[in-house]
Amino acid sequence: MLKLYDFLESGNGYKVRLLLTQLGLSFERIELDITQGESRTPDFLARNPNGRIPTLELEDGSCLAESNAIQWYLADGTDFLPASALERAQVLQWMFFEQYSHEPYIAVVRYWVHHGMDVGRELEVAERRKRGYDALSVMETHLDGRDFFVAGRYSIADIALYAYTHVADEGGFDLAPYPELRSWLDRVASQPGHIPITRS
Amino acid sequence: MLKLYDFLESGNGYKVRLLLTQLGLSFERIELDITQGESRTPDFLARNPNGRIPTLELEDGSCLAESNAIQWYLADGTDFLPASALERAQVLQWMFFEQYSHEPYIAVVRYWVHHGMDVGRELEVAERRKRGYDALSVMETHLDGRDFFVAGRYSIADIALYAYTHVADEGGFDLAPYPELRSWLDRVASQPGHIPITRS
Repeated sequence: MLKLYDFLESGNGYKVRLLLTQLGLSFERIELDITQGESRTPDFLARNPNGRIPTLELEDGSCLAESNAIQWYLADGTDFLPASALERAQVLQWMFFEQYSHEPYIAVVRYWVHHGMDVGRELEVAERRKRGYDALSVMETHLDGRDFFVAGRYSIADIALYAYTHVADEGGFDLAPYPELRSWLDRVASQPGHIPITRS
Repeated sequence: MLKLYDFLESGNGYKVRLLLTQLGLSFERIELDITQGESRTPDFLARNPNGRIPTLELEDGSCLAESNAIQWYLADGTDFLPASALERAQVLQWMFFEQYSHEPYIAVVRYWVHHGMDVGRELEVAERRKRGYDALSVMETHLDGRDFFVAGRYSIADIALYAYTHVADEGGFDLAPYPELRSWLDRVASQPGHIPITRS
């Protein structure tokens, strides 16, 4: 059986949990408390030398890391990934946007707030909030006239961006000025087999 | 003809320049001085709302952003991308590692040093250098016993990681303690059709 090394609070882990569930694949979820160093043990570093969750262990013991690479592996050949070369590259474009221009700001501020680490680093929080809003604005612009990010249909690009956008308020982000984004969040949440981030 | 919106100093741009050259594809390179806001004009934002180079404009006028997504689009179906599902996902794993755990530290510090922006932010430079060395250590561990990052052969995973690693010294990183990494840099630089980052 597939094994998912995970941390329930993580949006990166949630991407994989959500996709596995929507694909109807069985998996064993192994919770690691990353705040207690459980993703930096010798045992786990042998699975992912970068010491991060999510990491997926396949039936043959091979391990795959990076939430969006895992998503690609699971989605390829399914309805969650378009077929044309350009649309597939556009899915990757939005997933790299998510990891470079979105997650380091929106997810990191949420993590700091969750764990009381925002106190004493107010300047850095403000700077990251600004960049997080920049990312939300890019998404809002793109969604004007579009139901989903790529090819007019739900794909792993939407899952990647949904994961931390739908909990951005937990990091103090106000989504009120982003009506296209809020409609898209509703569309993603109404997909068959959707589960909340809190569901293990 | 393909048009590449680029900035010569950029390792992200270099990835695409290098791959296009090694694939033998003709392209027009359009230099934008990102330090002067040339990637934030209304004209360019219409091509990439995130305002970043590299951006590739296809024959039909479609635009594709994010260096590693562009690489995937160009490499798919060629020898620069392995054929098996797991190896393709491993290529993505290392490209996401590059954008999340490597580029924000090694490339950003190099950019700051190039443009005199390291002065006055010594603490942040030190923190980013530490994380950059963490990324180099993960690479060194993986390369022990391997010639290339995935499937024992040169791929876009190597190009993605080479782009900023081979100029890490320009950001003050010392590669002396990383012998596997230095041998791998030599192997990448000796591939047919290799060009230096300074070649437009």
